[in-house]
Amino acid sequence: MTKTSTRRGFMKGGLTAGAALATAGLTAPARAEGDPAITEIQDWNRYSGPGVDASPYGKPSDFEAHVVRRNVAWLTADPVSSVNFTPLHELDGIITPNGLCFERHHAGVAEVDPQKHRLMINGLVDTPLVFTMADLMRFPRENHVYFLECAANSGMEWRGAQLNGCQYTHGMVHCVMYTGVKLKHLLEEAGVKTAGKWVMPEGADASAMTRSIPLEKALDDCLVAFKMNGEALRPEQGYPLRLVVPGWEGNMWVKWLRRLEVGDEPWHAREETSKYTDLLADGKARRFTWVMDVKSVITSPSPQMPITHGKGRTVLTGLAWSGTGRIARVDVSLDGGRNWVTARLDGPSLPKALHRFYHEFDWDGSELFLQSRAIDEAGFVQPTKPELRAVRGANSIYHNNGIQTWHVATDGVVENVEIS
Amino acid sequence: MTKTSTRRGFMKGGLTAGAALATAGLTAPARAEGDPAITEIQDWNRYSGPGVDASPYGKPSDFEAHVVRRNVAWLTADPVSSVNFTPLHELDGIITPNGLCFERHHAGVAEVDPQKHRLMINGLVDTPLVFTMADLMRFPRENHVYFLECAANSGMEWRGAQLNGCQYTHGMVHCVMYTGVKLKHLLEEAGVKTAGKWVMPEGADASAMTRSIPLEKALDDCLVAFKMNGEALRPEQGYPLRLVVPGWEGNMWVKWLRRLEVGDEPWHAREETSKYTDLLADGKARRFTWVMDVKSVITSPSPQMPITHGKGRTVLTGLAWSGTGRIARVDVSLDGGRNWVTARLDGPSLPKALHRFYHEFDWDGSELFLQSRAIDEAGFVQPTKPELRAVRGANSIYHNNGIQTWHVATDGVVENVEIS
Repeated sequence: MTKTSTRRGFMKGGLTAGAALATAGLTAPARAEGDPAITEIQDWNRYSGPGVDASPYGKPSDFEAHVVRRNVAWLTADPVSSVNFTPLHELDGIITPNGLCFERHHAGVAEVDPQKHRLMINGLVDTPLVFTMADLMRFPRENHVYFLECAANSGMEWRGAQLNGCQYTHGMVHCVMYTGVKLKHLLEEAGVKTAGKWVMPEGADASAMTRSIPLEKALDDCLVAFKMNGEALRPEQGYPLRLVVPGWEGNMWVKWLRRLEVGDEPWHAREETSKYTDLLADGKARRFTWVMDVKSVITSPSPQMPITHGKGRTVLTGLAWSGTGRIARVDVSLDGGRNWVTARLDGPSLPKALHRFYHEFDWDGSELFLQSRAIDEAGFVQPTKPELRAVRGANSIYHNNGIQTWHVATDGVVENVEIS
Repeated sequence: MTKTSTRRGFMKGGLTAGAALATAGLTAPARAEGDPAITEIQDWNRYSGPGVDASPYGKPSDFEAHVVRRNVAWLTADPVSSVNFTPLHELDGIITPNGLCFERHHAGVAEVDPQKHRLMINGLVDTPLVFTMADLMRFPRENHVYFLECAANSGMEWRGAQLNGCQYTHGMVHCVMYTGVKLKHLLEEAGVKTAGKWVMPEGADASAMTRSIPLEKALDDCLVAFKMNGEALRPEQGYPLRLVVPGWEGNMWVKWLRRLEVGDEPWHAREETSKYTDLLADGKARRFTWVMDVKSVITSPSPQMPITHGKGRTVLTGLAWSGTGRIARVDVSLDGGRNWVTARLDGPSLPKALHRFYHEFDWDGSELFLQSRAIDEAGFVQPTKPELRAVRGANSIYHNNGIQTWHVATDGVVENVEIS
């Protein structure tokens, strides 16, 4: 294994035959009777707190104070910034708890009184309408578990930034159960004129976020959502109302939704011209690249979650998702892509939702190059970063779904590397 | 309609033909252009907050401060009590957010340091074992969405208490995605001796909660869980470790789990003799009534969620669940059980999880007697309260899965009633 010119780069050529890929049998990590651990058992019942009455809305344990959406100083010039990341390395399953959901805001978080909030539908409609929140509660509701991913997730990796933790390389994604009304029902209520082909959602925040959505998508699976994981949307997620655009880039899921305009062509808003376009090597740019491609990442072991237990039984886990639908399969490699084994998908498999995968193996203590590769039900396969750059160049910020590599050193420390 | 002797009782006999059961078409509740509402649109973007940096672990909007696990003084003698209720009337979908999950503690909430916590397996095993939390992370994990219901949920209704809100009649239930290790794997690691037929989980709290679980269940679907909705268990839910006993009464899901003893017969612990037994009319008691029966409740309209919009399109919604498996069907009646219509089940249908149902109808403004009746995939049908009392008497506290009735007055106010 030879390092390339990048700081943590490695040549794929000289890869040592590291880890056994076989699923581990149940050999004994647990401790037998007589082990000193037994004498360490604490008398927890000496002190028990008074329960949850002091905080009728519950909070995590103080022992989990490090599990937050950002806990590093190096990421941005100032700790107050406009982006906060899901701590994927600390989580399991496919549901993101509301307090830890990725969020990006473009001009602060609007503080909206739901009693005074209105949603307008105007433009090429038969009857312009204004809805109160109470009006919206009278339409049929649906519940879906969907992932939301920012198009810029993993964006700094295009040029090899190699941020050292999946929270910062892949944490611009969350997955919750959304409750809302189908946008289709609201548009039917207003009546879309024959010439109407596009819908522009507009946010009530200071950025007045706007995007252009083709009518086909608006009438398909978009939701006007008011709840996440059962309760009201969180302020930074658009309380009291946001658009849900399943499988498409997060920037289109307009928060603090106050208006939906129907038009005959796209609006060419700032957020779909200056931003959220993909500059190619030849200077041309891709536009309207809405669908989030098939992608995956190993969340543990990862730079923020090293192996601390030494050799032996090890649980590798991660997340996979696709804006096209369900994940069909995830492969895992321990040797930088030379050999692959099919990971175990666990939990409900829901379209346009995160999927949790595991691979249990016996670690022999040698260095590893961990990779995961997702394949969705439409047959799309997650590419390597070199494959992606060969097609799209290295100018892009958005839509990097390249395979991530983590290097595990013999002491269990994990780093973000590129292999070539 | 004649009132019975109970405060809010009604005779079923003289029921007026109230509401139309037909699903409403999309007739117009929303407001047309020129409506005063349009002029009320607020300029929310004048003030936007700085984002979430001040609280890297997120919190609900201040406008949702009323959505908590208890907000009434009348329920118990002192506001500090040992039980707190999911505000079902405020929620939608099937996931309960961690901050709003029902919890009951028997001797305060233990404050357990995960670094010092140990789980012991002893008794009739080949090799007694002690696990650290790090040890447990090396076993294969699973993720499941399960409901947890206290056996005493709706218990005060046996004798007609008629608490005025589904949060207090049915809110001793929550439903989250649990992540954990199968108990089977841990028992296999220790090796259960041939004589071992029961498992006793023990909590580390001051009540040292203990229950007897038959080995068959322990080897079937029980989990030793450390995460809920992706993140670490909340303190009041047993941080850092609890037992998950899918479909069985919540008291058995031992929190702050510190020991699992294998034995050849049940332990006849306090919580399965003095408590959690069902006294019948003849003075005998049912024991080991572990499975939570098929059940449902309408969460809106409900006493805490009256109809405030007057006549016309109305969304009725509720929850159904069964400890046996999936819900096959939910029926809804608007006239106290005379006529039934099949409700619309929405969202993923997962075994031993909550199911969300809806029924959209046009309310004509006359009084309603709302009921829901769940049927599970094993064919069990939720009984009426009179049917239940005919078999079990009225001495019980536990396992009341009788059909709940809400009375909707012509002004939209909703009350808990019994019809006979």
